[in-house]
Amino acid sequence: MLTNHAAVAAVVATALAEDAPWGDLTSDAVVPAGSTAAAALRARQPGVLAGGGAVHEAFAQAARLVGAEVRVSDVPADGTVFAAGDVLGRVAGDAHAVLRAERIALNLLQHLSGVATLTAAFVAEVAGTRARVVDTRKTTPGLRALERAAVRAGGGHNHRWSLSDAVLVKDNHLAVLTAGGLDVTTALKAVRDKVPHTTVVEVEVDSLDQLDAVLAADVDVVLLDNFSLADLEEGVRRVAGRALVEASGGVRLDTVRAIAATGVDLVSVGALTQNSPTLDIGLDVDLRPGRAASA
Amino acid sequence: MLTNHAAVAAVVATALAEDAPWGDLTSDAVVPAGSTAAAALRARQPGVLAGGGAVHEAFAQAARLVGAEVRVSDVPADGTVFAAGDVLGRVAGDAHAVLRAERIALNLLQHLSGVATLTAAFVAEVAGTRARVVDTRKTTPGLRALERAAVRAGGGHNHRWSLSDAVLVKDNHLAVLTAGGLDVTTALKAVRDKVPHTTVVEVEVDSLDQLDAVLAADVDVVLLDNFSLADLEEGVRRVAGRALVEASGGVRLDTVRAIAATGVDLVSVGALTQNSPTLDIGLDVDLRPGRAASA
Amino acid sequence: MLTNHAAVAAVVATALAEDAPWGDLTSDAVVPAGSTAAAALRARQPGVLAGGGAVHEAFAQAARLVGAEVRVSDVPADGTVFAAGDVLGRVAGDAHAVLRAERIALNLLQHLSGVATLTAAFVAEVAGTRARVVDTRKTTPGLRALERAAVRAGGGHNHRWSLSDAVLVKDNHLAVLTAGGLDVTTALKAVRDKVPHTTVVEVEVDSLDQLDAVLAADVDVVLLDNFSLADLEEGVRRVAGRALVEASGGVRLDTVRAIAATGVDLVSVGALTQNSPTLDIGLDVDLRPGRAASA
Amino acid sequence: MLTNHAAVAAVVATALAEDAPWGDLTSDAVVPAGSTAAAALRARQPGVLAGGGAVHEAFAQAARLVGAEVRVSDVPADGTVFAAGDVLGRVAGDAHAVLRAERIALNLLQHLSGVATLTAAFVAEVAGTRARVVDTRKTTPGLRALERAAVRAGGGHNHRWSLSDAVLVKDNHLAVLTAGGLDVTTALKAVRDKVPHTTVVEVEVDSLDQLDAVLAADVDVVLLDNFSLADLEEGVRRVAGRALVEASGGVRLDTVRAIAATGVDLVSVGALTQNSPTLDIGLDVDLRPGRAASA
Amino acid sequence: MLTNHAAVAAVVATALAEDAPWGDLTSDAVVPAGSTAAAALRARQPGVLAGGGAVHEAFAQAARLVGAEVRVSDVPADGTVFAAGDVLGRVAGDAHAVLRAERIALNLLQHLSGVATLTAAFVAEVAGTRARVVDTRKTTPGLRALERAAVRAGGGHNHRWSLSDAVLVKDNHLAVLTAGGLDVTTALKAVRDKVPHTTVVEVEVDSLDQLDAVLAADVDVVLLDNFSLADLEEGVRRVAGRALVEASGGVRLDTVRAIAATGVDLVSVGALTQNSPTLDIGLDVDLRPGRAASA
Amino acid sequence: MLTNHAAVAAVVATALAEDAPWGDLTSDAVVPAGSTAAAALRARQPGVLAGGGAVHEAFAQAARLVGAEVRVSDVPADGTVFAAGDVLGRVAGDAHAVLRAERIALNLLQHLSGVATLTAAFVAEVAGTRARVVDTRKTTPGLRALERAAVRAGGGHNHRWSLSDAVLVKDNHLAVLTAGGLDVTTALKAVRDKVPHTTVVEVEVDSLDQLDAVLAADVDVVLLDNFSLADLEEGVRRVAGRALVEASGGVRLDTVRAIAATGVDLVSVGALTQNSPTLDIGLDVDLRPGRAASA
Repeated sequence: MLTNHAAVAAVVATALAEDAPWGDLTSDAVVPAGSTAAAALRARQPGVLAGGGAVHEAFAQAARLVGAEVRVSDVPADGTVFAAGDVLGRVAGDAHAVLRAERIALNLLQHLSGVATLTAAFVAEVAGTRARVVDTRKTTPGLRALERAAVRAGGGHNHRWSLSDAVLVKDNHLAVLTAGGLDVTTALKAVRDKVPHTTVVEVEVDSLDQLDAVLAADVDVVLLDNFSLADLEEGVRRVAGRALVEASGGVRLDTVRAIAATGVDLVSVGALTQNSPTLDIGLDVDLRPGRAASA
Repeated sequence: MLTNHAAVAAVVATALAEDAPWGDLTSDAVVPAGSTAAAALRARQPGVLAGGGAVHEAFAQAARLVGAEVRVSDVPADGTVFAAGDVLGRVAGDAHAVLRAERIALNLLQHLSGVATLTAAFVAEVAGTRARVVDTRKTTPGLRALERAAVRAGGGHNHRWSLSDAVLVKDNHLAVLTAGGLDVTTALKAVRDKVPHTTVVEVEVDSLDQLDAVLAADVDVVLLDNFSLADLEEGVRRVAGRALVEASGGVRLDTVRAIAATGVDLVSVGALTQNSPTLDIGLDVDLRPGRAASA
Repeated sequence: MLTNHAAVAAVVATALAEDAPWGDLTSDAVVPAGSTAAAALRARQPGVLAGGGAVHEAFAQAARLVGAEVRVSDVPADGTVFAAGDVLGRVAGDAHAVLRAERIALNLLQHLSGVATLTAAFVAEVAGTRARVVDTRKTTPGLRALERAAVRAGGGHNHRWSLSDAVLVKDNHLAVLTAGGLDVTTALKAVRDKVPHTTVVEVEVDSLDQLDAVLAADVDVVLLDNFSLADLEEGVRRVAGRALVEASGGVRLDTVRAIAATGVDLVSVGALTQNSPTLDIGLDVDLRPGRAASA
Repeated sequence: MLTNHAAVAAVVATALAEDAPWGDLTSDAVVPAGSTAAAALRARQPGVLAGGGAVHEAFAQAARLVGAEVRVSDVPADGTVFAAGDVLGRVAGDAHAVLRAERIALNLLQHLSGVATLTAAFVAEVAGTRARVVDTRKTTPGLRALERAAVRAGGGHNHRWSLSDAVLVKDNHLAVLTAGGLDVTTALKAVRDKVPHTTVVEVEVDSLDQLDAVLAADVDVVLLDNFSLADLEEGVRRVAGRALVEASGGVRLDTVRAIAATGVDLVSVGALTQNSPTLDIGLDVDLRPGRAASA
Repeated sequence: MLTNHAAVAAVVATALAEDAPWGDLTSDAVVPAGSTAAAALRARQPGVLAGGGAVHEAFAQAARLVGAEVRVSDVPADGTVFAAGDVLGRVAGDAHAVLRAERIALNLLQHLSGVATLTAAFVAEVAGTRARVVDTRKTTPGLRALERAAVRAGGGHNHRWSLSDAVLVKDNHLAVLTAGGLDVTTALKAVRDKVPHTTVVEVEVDSLDQLDAVLAADVDVVLLDNFSLADLEEGVRRVAGRALVEASGGVRLDTVRAIAATGVDLVSVGALTQNSPTLDIGLDVDLRPGRAASA
Repeated sequence: MLTNHAAVAAVVATALAEDAPWGDLTSDAVVPAGSTAAAALRARQPGVLAGGGAVHEAFAQAARLVGAEVRVSDVPADGTVFAAGDVLGRVAGDAHAVLRAERIALNLLQHLSGVATLTAAFVAEVAGTRARVVDTRKTTPGLRALERAAVRAGGGHNHRWSLSDAVLVKDNHLAVLTAGGLDVTTALKAVRDKVPHTTVVEVEVDSLDQLDAVLAADVDVVLLDNFSLADLEEGVRRVAGRALVEASGGVRLDTVRAIAATGVDLVSVGALTQNSPTLDIGLDVDLRPGRAASA
């Protein structure tokens, strides 16, 4: 799946402006115009790559900002599994541009590869089950498009993008829906009737008791939040393929396999984008002074 | 120290647009106009608060987006230490606005309080030494202003804001500076002469051998990167107050105290903004349907 | 369903800037500061209202631009059916603000009410059938949110918002999918497996021959484009409730009823947003000069 | 006359963002990277072309968004008269870019060519008279620059761009001007004295009685709104070349010739930009899968 | 004539962001929350006021940035003549907001009042002649709207706003127009025929020889650039009211009266916006510490 | 020192939009597509160049706006000293682009070279002293980055960029600091403790009496505002190298040398950016009509 260039470009532009609102004082004072740099991105621990597009974009934008050229090469495709010591890209070109982009590229690559690597660990745990590992709306403000691509790079799937593209009826919504005396089934059918036919309707259920009334409304997905393993199994049995079943609630690496084994279709994991450790990736820069320096 | 309203507003606006590009399908279909909501932010683990301004801004902007009113109250000041179970704020007002802002407010509050809490742990470790715990440029793209405020909320201090407001000469800069045959002292004095008098000059040294030549250039700060404890102590002794001394390099909670005890003035810790665990804070929303619902 | 304030605000801001890049030369030269205006929006032909939010926003933004106050009242809710002569709103306040917003408010109200009115005519035609009248991506650049709200105001439903929130596999997509030798069913199942579980998969079929292979992939909607009435009927019969059925292709007011009568679930009509006649609505402004004028 | 690239670029960027806020789900799931597309724009009814620049811009921007190349060729110049079946442009390049831009290019080309075609019909009607057919401020919010270029492509002329670049004194302005007891001539001379010498002053007159007082103020244009043909003729006679004469008010294709024949210099027609039917132009896309598909 | 709020707001926002990208370090460290400030703007030399709206806007925006209140009062209307020592406004409110806006307000007020004061000096020189003193496109990038309002505040008039709202045919344009063999009169009539009827056509003439051919094309204004006084007089005589006559070219305070006395209608002066001395206006701020300070 | 491309690009984009919101009416009507222009920038008085980057950017952006090519060459480096008559650049390319950028390029080059030239005059005056000539925050709103680069081009140095990157404690700040009873030294040490270690602390002193208490707080710079020459000398003597000494207050070309001779390290001059005369630089454009003209 392709990365979203517009989103990457916006994040990189924000980061570059934030990190050098009026230029790089040190490089301007130290590095002669015309100096060049060569650099290699190198993994210091094993992982799964995500954010390759951000690396390209960071150096490309920095090059435009200083009116020079930088070439980026040898960045593996997102989703590539790498070992400690592997080269994750090479950079060559104008020294000012390289030094401007260096930290931005690393900040993004380390974070996004961290997301991909954690996702891959969850996905490995559920191997052999029918369950997809999916992300949530617990993303870093401004980075949703990049973090979701990182989840996919790690072998996970995405949940709804935002509040705008799928219905997810939670318990307090249900309370409102039925406050006027409507039964759950009728109320949910009314919701289905209001939204576009291209909109999936997912409903959170508190207990197995609610399940039949919800399913009677022909919803697409039921969300079983914080259910015991036994109740998840019973839920899957009762749904019997009439809807997809999603499990959620504090899912951890050491609990995900048992949850997936209950037969649910989806396990959503907030930690993928909220608590992935940054991956240690380094960039060693080798500067070569321009003529002005040796004068 | 005050929060930066413009930065907070920009982050919140980006997050709200990202999370609901064309509105909240579920609430539009479920929650009658005129419905209200009351909610309380509640800590599920102990910590230090940061991001209170973001909470206010998220609900304020969401209220404007839907053309309604929301009141936020009882948010403690940034830097407040709280226990599990403590209320960290109350929200009351239009239900559509509350539901629109809920996740944005939580995503920011959980992340920023995580930064503050981790910072406070580092600061507690160095108590009794002369060392400041300071942050780095390893921040989340777009969130630098907020993360730096969170570091301050946790009792830490900020390093330079960006490439634009202080000189930090690293090893490869030094190599360029001296490539034409200049000695280190002369080269660094030339840098000092180029930059504004309001710009602090900090220089990274690779080994104790370089220290005298660097200090002879009357720099403001020397950065001892990845030095052993013994070398740090020796460095502090040799500098003898002629410059501030900063230690850096993979500093952890279990190593920071020994580093600080060497007498350095500053310990910079990338993990503060790069690897702080998200703090668990919940928002329980209680919806009250508007008249349309009971019709 | 609520209007999308952010989208309305953006359109109005663009329109106001476009219509007076450096102010209103005439009013600045003619109308004394402090002058007031009262105005009434009045329908000159019957119709269905849409764009009420845009009217409020246009006068509100213009008031801010000139640093004054305007009150808008008595605008009926979107979806209100009105007769020729009906008052569709009243405006009172600073004359400069009223004159600045007047044309913007009318341009939007006339266009959007035109969309709602045409939609309502289509909806009336299909009364008694199971078919929804839905819109398409043939919207005016920049106005999609407003035009889709107008379709809903007219009793229609929305199709997918954009390329980002539902899959619609067309004939040339299918050709690509099967170019490597895959059969249609397998290929479509692979698509389903890649996209989020919150994404509806709709597939266009060229002929009834393709129908079974497509349905075997468990798609959500089949799109029968430019089918004869007989083939539509046969298609509905064969689908037999396993997916929703959408009919499309040059649907007109005089053909929509027969199409809906075939039993399809959805009839999509490009003309709703692409060829709705502007509705004739007037705004008579009554100016009262400020003191400066009588001096 | 050249098109306004900045305006076209802004409209296209808005439209692309609106139509795919986070990418094209279908193409991402279906079309292998490296796939190409060839397409031809073809008229399905005769007309006059406008919006050629928008077609170029839509494919160029989409190509940048996906980081690929698209070539557009053979788009005739704006103003070209074409027959049903004529090719109005060819597109070749990356399949993802072509599919992203396709609908945007069509939406703009169909609408703007509709404006040009309707304008050309009005212009043909007034052939042999001295009258220019001119547009109004009744344009689609955000599209003024493009619609005005379309009017010129159809052989029409533009009226003032906005409230900022010409004075147009309407009846209620006149009432304000004379509220303090000033006579019309003196009041209008005062307006002329306030505005730049590069600003044309046009004045709407309600009845022939007002004409002499207005002309005595040495205005540039008089606007005769909703006059009978006889009164228009009398107005032209009385003005006798001292100012330009503009006729306006519900002008239709079947009335414009008689109005022009009265000798007026200008006939302004709101319908040009407000009620032009969309022109039927198709784009047949032929996809060729990249290597990944046949693997 | 009213000021243009949107332009003022944009300039002020840019200036505030430029002057404090991440807040006011000094005030954040020194001034306790809740501190207030009172300040008075006071003229240190006589002049004519312009930029009053910018003063209001600077404090209003700064107040929003820090989430506090500031009141601005007693700012005289633009165009007010003042003496050294006169109070030009009072400010009271939150100390952080006042200190943030102070320099921005002064920078704009000093510059714009400088423009108004210089303009007033030119206008005073031409008293009793028929000539308007008008500005040019030699404005400060980003400040055109404000500088043009300042020219009006000083009693001057504006020339065309930009390249978009009037035709000004210069000598090299004329050379192009006639390169194909057309005579000047025919060529200029063709220009008139292309542009909107609301567009004034002004033509620069090199020598008196060209005048008749230009006037024969019925142009609105002739521009006599760098003519001797004698030639200006002769030019005015020959034009004889058939067009407005503008004189330009290095006009100074000590030459403008003689130029105006030749009978020209307009004298354009680049220096008004390009070389006006900054007016000396001070702002004395009196801070009152909030409670936190006395704790 | 390098120019700041992002800042230059933003200023040029604003200026181009301001100067031609909907294109160049004259050129569109007069200059055939395909016409070319050649032009030379030529100094009409001696000076020091600044703004070369803005010249390149203006023509480059204008070329993109009209979809054509322009080459700029032979612009000397910023800081170049030139004589009257010297060529300061050559331009060749599409005529529409050249005419669109011409005034913008000149407005910026004339203003910025004026700043550089005035700065160079001040710098020449202080030759042989230890004093730097530095700028202030009295810059033109929106142009700070460019004006500061011009100061450097003239041989001056920059003061702090903004309120965000250095502490400058003025008299009213000091009053607040000590309002609670703190002595000056303690209060200033507390400020130092709050701000980043990369932040220079400068303190304004009213009289020599305050000097010792301020110096005892180990501040980096003391600002002696409006001191007599004798007091400046005494101040320098007392500071004795413990801090940098800055003199400010109405410094003029005829007073700067004596001030510098007192031994101060810095002389700040508001006039550099606030009252530099525009430098007279011309651009003679030679148009060559495209084929359409000779048809």
